[in-house]
Amino acid sequence: MTEELLTQVKDVVAEEAFGIWFLIGAALVFFMQAGFAMVETGFTRAKNAGNIIMKNLMDFCIGTVAFIFLGFGLLLGEDIGGFIGAPTLGILTDYANFDFSNFVFNLVFCATTATIVSGAMAERTKFLSYCIYSAIISAVIYPIEAHWIWGGGWLAQWGFHDFAGSCAIHMVGGLTALIGASMVGPRIGKFVKDKDGKVTKVKAFPGHSLTIGALGCFILWFGWYGFNGAAATSGGQLASIFVTTTIAPATATVICMIFTWLKYGKPDVSMCLNASLAGLVGITAGCDVLDAGGALVVGIVSGLLIVFGVWFLDHVIHVDDPVGAVAVHFLNGVWGTLAVGLLANPSVPGYSLADQNGNLLAGLFYGGGAALLGRQCTGIITVCAWVAVTMTIVFAVIKAIIGLRVTEHEELVGLDIEEHGLASSYAGFVMTEMLNTGVEDTSAEVPVEAAVPVRLAPSYNESVSADGKKYTKIEIICKQNKFEALRAALGEIGVTGLTVTSVLGCGAQKGASEYYRGTPIEPSLLPKTKVEVVVCKVPVETVVNTARKALYSGHIGDGKIFAYNIEDVVRVRTGEVGYDALQDAEN
Amino acid sequence: MTEELLTQVKDVVAEEAFGIWFLIGAALVFFMQAGFAMVETGFTRAKNAGNIIMKNLMDFCIGTVAFIFLGFGLLLGEDIGGFIGAPTLGILTDYANFDFSNFVFNLVFCATTATIVSGAMAERTKFLSYCIYSAIISAVIYPIEAHWIWGGGWLAQWGFHDFAGSCAIHMVGGLTALIGASMVGPRIGKFVKDKDGKVTKVKAFPGHSLTIGALGCFILWFGWYGFNGAAATSGGQLASIFVTTTIAPATATVICMIFTWLKYGKPDVSMCLNASLAGLVGITAGCDVLDAGGALVVGIVSGLLIVFGVWFLDHVIHVDDPVGAVAVHFLNGVWGTLAVGLLANPSVPGYSLADQNGNLLAGLFYGGGAALLGRQCTGIITVCAWVAVTMTIVFAVIKAIIGLRVTEHEELVGLDIEEHGLASSYAGFVMTEMLNTGVEDTSAEVPVEAAVPVRLAPSYNESVSADGKKYTKIEIICKQNKFEALRAALGEIGVTGLTVTSVLGCGAQKGASEYYRGTPIEPSLLPKTKVEVVVCKVPVETVVNTARKALYSGHIGDGKIFAYNIEDVVRVRTGEVGYDALQDAEN
Amino acid sequence: MTEELLTQVKDVVAEEAFGIWFLIGAALVFFMQAGFAMVETGFTRAKNAGNIIMKNLMDFCIGTVAFIFLGFGLLLGEDIGGFIGAPTLGILTDYANFDFSNFVFNLVFCATTATIVSGAMAERTKFLSYCIYSAIISAVIYPIEAHWIWGGGWLAQWGFHDFAGSCAIHMVGGLTALIGASMVGPRIGKFVKDKDGKVTKVKAFPGHSLTIGALGCFILWFGWYGFNGAAATSGGQLASIFVTTTIAPATATVICMIFTWLKYGKPDVSMCLNASLAGLVGITAGCDVLDAGGALVVGIVSGLLIVFGVWFLDHVIHVDDPVGAVAVHFLNGVWGTLAVGLLANPSVPGYSLADQNGNLLAGLFYGGGAALLGRQCTGIITVCAWVAVTMTIVFAVIKAIIGLRVTEHEELVGLDIEEHGLASSYAGFVMTEMLNTGVEDTSAEVPVEAAVPVRLAPSYNESVSADGKKYTKIEIICKQNKFEALRAALGEIGVTGLTVTSVLGCGAQKGASEYYRGTPIEPSLLPKTKVEVVVCKVPVETVVNTARKALYSGHIGDGKIFAYNIEDVVRVRTGEVGYDALQDAEN
Repeated sequence: MTEELLTQVKDVVAEEAFGIWFLIGAALVFFMQAGFAMVETGFTRAKNAGNIIMKNLMDFCIGTVAFIFLGFGLLLGEDIGGFIGAPTLGILTDYANFDFSNFVFNLVFCATTATIVSGAMAERTKFLSYCIYSAIISAVIYPIEAHWIWGGGWLAQWGFHDFAGSCAIHMVGGLTALIGASMVGPRIGKFVKDKDGKVTKVKAFPGHSLTIGALGCFILWFGWYGFNGAAATSGGQLASIFVTTTIAPATATVICMIFTWLKYGKPDVSMCLNASLAGLVGITAGCDVLDAGGALVVGIVSGLLIVFGVWFLDHVIHVDDPVGAVAVHFLNGVWGTLAVGLLANPSVPGYSLADQNGNLLAGLFYGGGAALLGRQCTGIITVCAWVAVTMTIVFAVIKAIIGLRVTEHEELVGLDIEEHGLASSYAGFVMTEMLNTGVEDTSAEVPVEAAVPVRLAPSYNESVSADGKKYTKIEIICKQNKFEALRAALGEIGVTGLTVTSVLGCGAQKGASEYYRGTPIEPSLLPKTKVEVVVCKVPVETVVNTARKALYSGHIGDGKIFAYNIEDVVRVRTGEVGYDALQDAEN
Repeated sequence: MTEELLTQVKDVVAEEAFGIWFLIGAALVFFMQAGFAMVETGFTRAKNAGNIIMKNLMDFCIGTVAFIFLGFGLLLGEDIGGFIGAPTLGILTDYANFDFSNFVFNLVFCATTATIVSGAMAERTKFLSYCIYSAIISAVIYPIEAHWIWGGGWLAQWGFHDFAGSCAIHMVGGLTALIGASMVGPRIGKFVKDKDGKVTKVKAFPGHSLTIGALGCFILWFGWYGFNGAAATSGGQLASIFVTTTIAPATATVICMIFTWLKYGKPDVSMCLNASLAGLVGITAGCDVLDAGGALVVGIVSGLLIVFGVWFLDHVIHVDDPVGAVAVHFLNGVWGTLAVGLLANPSVPGYSLADQNGNLLAGLFYGGGAALLGRQCTGIITVCAWVAVTMTIVFAVIKAIIGLRVTEHEELVGLDIEEHGLASSYAGFVMTEMLNTGVEDTSAEVPVEAAVPVRLAPSYNESVSADGKKYTKIEIICKQNKFEALRAALGEIGVTGLTVTSVLGCGAQKGASEYYRGTPIEPSLLPKTKVEVVVCKVPVETVVNTARKALYSGHIGDGKIFAYNIEDVVRVRTGEVGYDALQDAEN
Repeated sequence: MTEELLTQVKDVVAEEAFGIWFLIGAALVFFMQAGFAMVETGFTRAKNAGNIIMKNLMDFCIGTVAFIFLGFGLLLGEDIGGFIGAPTLGILTDYANFDFSNFVFNLVFCATTATIVSGAMAERTKFLSYCIYSAIISAVIYPIEAHWIWGGGWLAQWGFHDFAGSCAIHMVGGLTALIGASMVGPRIGKFVKDKDGKVTKVKAFPGHSLTIGALGCFILWFGWYGFNGAAATSGGQLASIFVTTTIAPATATVICMIFTWLKYGKPDVSMCLNASLAGLVGITAGCDVLDAGGALVVGIVSGLLIVFGVWFLDHVIHVDDPVGAVAVHFLNGVWGTLAVGLLANPSVPGYSLADQNGNLLAGLFYGGGAALLGRQCTGIITVCAWVAVTMTIVFAVIKAIIGLRVTEHEELVGLDIEEHGLASSYAGFVMTEMLNTGVEDTSAEVPVEAAVPVRLAPSYNESVSADGKKYTKIEIICKQNKFEALRAALGEIGVTGLTVTSVLGCGAQKGASEYYRGTPIEPSLLPKTKVEVVVCKVPVETVVNTARKALYSGHIGDGKIFAYNIEDVVRVRTGEVGYDALQDAEN
């Protein structure tokens, strides 16, 4: 075989074999939807699990429809002035000549961009508003900036490099997440403010399944080999991409483990999982032009950036991002795009970064000067500007017309039941939503009822116990979301030792019927919280009145209070009995 | 390179590259077993989780053995009269010349067919019977009809088209599911009947993990790119298959979301997940011959068909299909096979549908007349007939000899413990199986004990409370599966306000020892339900007797009843105390 | 096209197409990390879920760093005397000429070896020690023996065959797991010993999510097609590998199901899941040289070996391996390596096993005599010796310097909170860790407090109930991990009927603040156990004193004991009331 023939044969092979790999890569990117869904579900609370899954599912499905009718044309249609592609319905009118592979490939990338946002806005965003946002970003916002970068637009022509989307996808998704999370506001109870509106405390809302969240991260990392590698066109390039796509996240995770260990005293699991994703986002733009050393540097910075980013959002700008989407995707998207300008190494296989005259462009640290870095900065700034302006308008319009946020009641009770009629995503498991959520329900400020006097049964102070004192157990059955208010109120009157049980209340109480797969669900057994306190000196009357004020909302189902006589109390640690055993706050 | 040489080189490339892809596709189809396992587990109740996983696992494993010794030959052996292939043990006797790729590929498809059925028959089918069914469908029923369609049989020869198995796999699995679910009967409590046997109410049994179910759907969708694409032979064809395989499920999901939103008031999460699968099943037969417009049409119909199918089974023919397998696979399998006859577009790349004379056959809407549609209908009818007759016989014989269904006790307690000695698939989680399961335990009709009189302790009516009334808290510890019976009985005597807690009962109670990985488990802590009621006017004696009748089964562990004096009761909402606070049914 | 040209074209195609597949295979092997993480998490207890995930994640990430700087060179660097490769930093200094594909491929295999161990040492190994072990095995131990087998070392030169790592990876990981699990010792409560130190009882600790464990098994099986197939170099060879990689695990699972059914009375789900993995490990060494019959034999043996191995560790040598890693990986790794010597069939496509003179070597049963078998045995023995010596030293040094094991308190409370500050990996779920854990807390032997007398309130024996007897309900709120001690103590004084509830205790109790993603978590609601007993003849004083002794540790949070008067008791089954109803141990 002559050299010439060999080259020709290799071209044929590359076209066919890499053509198949391109589609396999697209399938892997599709599978990342599962990764996002699991990460976002695992890292949020169980009462919103169905909702977050639905948002992830609909991102892809609505995005597909939007991409067919508008997005694909704007992205890959005939270039108009470097700014947009010409809309086309070729997929429907001229299927035989349609660019099938690129449609699928760009669609799955587009859906990734949209789905990043659902995590940051989780647990309080109205489902309808989310669907509208999702359609708009897939149909218009993403395709236009992606046209600039990948569709033959002005950034592509000029030499801006973003191989797999640190900028086009992750920075865009992350910035949209930041805007969305800011505009929708934090989850109830996330930030405790003083009278001047200053945040005095940030509360942690742990996710309901670290296991599912971790699975999601592993799926994302797996899928990322397709995400970064799909567009490779030679064996050497593909293998090098696999190397950098492995080193960067691994390094980021190790650095994050060490850093959180030093800073917080223990290595933080969920932060390390985020760090893997941060490293992956960081290497995405330059996966094809960085060498192993560059990937190490990207990983080190990403591993620190994720911890900084999560801290910065929580403690400095007070934006509530339940899953860390802004820190992972926005900060590392920017970093990854910049890293190309700093670390691009022309000796990497398949390297072809060049200016319009065909001169190779190297990164700053590889002797390329600021030319490439300048292009990368320009790309970052212009794409950020595009997204910031358009997405702010989009969210503002949605907010004005139908609102971004669910009601306080819906948020407290959970989006699963309120938005989807799903009593629980985990039927059969006993849940306690109030654990560590720090919800302080202000809906109790209904004024009327607080004035209704409690008629006290005379028995309360009649009989005494053996040690001459009267012990009473008071059992309070209340709504789960009222627990924090009750606890605070009881604390104020000196009752701090509580025993809390998750129970199911069952009355003739009627609610609107919910449907599960078209069949009405009987709303008969409702999750309630049982709080037991034992008091001696604090008058029972005071406890009962305090509890009533804290729990009252005027709605059916506010609960009941029972009082029992108790014979004696023993504290295990000290052997104290009776009154003494109740005297400090220990439980 | 000459054109001729180029063609030859391309052929070599296609053979090698698509040969690898064929096997990757088979691996993806294998991975769909994980998807089925997760969907079926997530959408059923926790007490049967281990059993449903085991059934999915064994479908593949038993199927492999069955396929080696019989199924493979019947499917791909030398054609005998267009009806069956000749059984062969070539895999064992002449391995060097064996068709390795086709064995693996057809095996994973075969296992898919078998596994569809486990979901529809979930939560009440005897494990042994299931294993037998699974072996038979994999060894005989599936291979024969698949021989007709894919093994060179009469349907293949005649021009019937089912590229990846809407008919051969999904319709067959779905129809078997329908037959099986009918013959095994509904889960206890699913359909409430009046005295004439007419169904008066359909109950919803929500699945125990929507998250796991959703993960399964994503895995299935991901694997489907292999399922539909594996047999492609050119890059253009494969890419077009990816396009249709994406558009149909996405469209079905969007349509289902809109439709359930309009019909039931809220978008139904689990139905939308089913809709994705419905769209995938719908596009499977024609994924290689439909264009994007055709895929849109398939998706729209599938999105509606799934909602209709679930409703039809529940509310019209009263067949209990816990995971919607019949609606997803049978209805959409039929639809997808028909859709080829309606929508096949000859301009799709790689199109080769033709009659025996080599004339291209197009779909009805693409000017092809009824020729292709007629072939499709014939295929549907004959394959349905084959499956209906054979599977009815198979299930009937199994039913007659060893029974299809577990006992009522086994079903109520759960198949995990009864069939596999697995105390819980979720050790450490507190569960409440009675939530919304609507189980009305009829096993309490053991006649003897109801006659045993309760000797009443004289104290019950002796002492009165401060307001001159006597309040008593009655605490009932019972088996979880008796709760619904207890609640109904208490409701009849006017006691509706219950507080229900999941507890663990612990006595010296002995049961048969169960083994976990070969080590006996001490059956010491058993899940129980604690029901608390507070009564005033209803005599304690009445409550106690009623509870005893409802709970009595004559077995150890029926529970205990305690009575406590209570001092006072306050209703939070109204401030009522004492007797008044108990007077309406609100909790 | 001439034959010669065709061959040349085929070579080009094979290089390119199998080059891509090699990397896809590597990605699949990476995905197996998710499988391991899920299997190990699902089969252990919820209180350690975050820790086990973190160990799996760090195995890969630390391993990557270790492999860059040392491991890769030792494995694939220039051969030094057949024993090790020369360390090289070529990846950093000469990236353009680096062997990208082999780096990624060998790295993912290396990480697999490391991660096998985390399961066997789960739930009690110090996280820091684990990280150190993980770095050492990835940097040194694995690369050296893998160099012997795959890096051109002496075993490779000599004709030892281990295609995908039954020996190099699974046997090595499994043996390390055995050494590690022995040296770290069993989990508290796993083996009950009599006074002479003889084990009298083995307890089962069921995993907290069989579903997640099963998902992990399916992911592993899926990934295994890459694990075994990635290094194939022709279509026929790859297809044959897929056949054997399917038949062996399927057969093992069927055999295990039948065997556990016969032996333990019911088919064991988690053992069958292990059996699939056992079959996969067994076929790994010979996946390319065994035929279908050989794969059947491997599967049959593996399916029995797994049951034997789990039993042998539990009941004979008393090594606690929570997930069965030793039985799966070590025993089947040895078996798989031996099986090559027994069952290698030269008619399998791509067969090239030969001695130094180029004579084909066949398995014993295929007429090859003992030549190949001898080589396999030599490999097994030398690699085992290498691992046994080096890993024993590694673990011994770690144990001496920083310790292998967490403290008893950390183990009882859980590694998630103690090692990672993670209050729960399942926030919002009500958990009961004491279920079946068999923990007998010996930390209560703090001597002081037991002497403090309980001052008895005189009321206890004053009033009597209506039947002339006094019933008292005693409610004990205690730490979850004290439950077993309490139960045993109460049993000794004849109190066996308990009702146990998972509650949350809430006091002013302060603990060290934990961080979740950098935000402190308020440790306000702590999981507690409420135990209720009703006594009549057993004096309340005895119960209270017994409970105090069992629960006392001297730390805040030991709990409280309350006593209530009770009016009457009814046993449901018999209708007995009052004292009689309490008289047997049934609950």
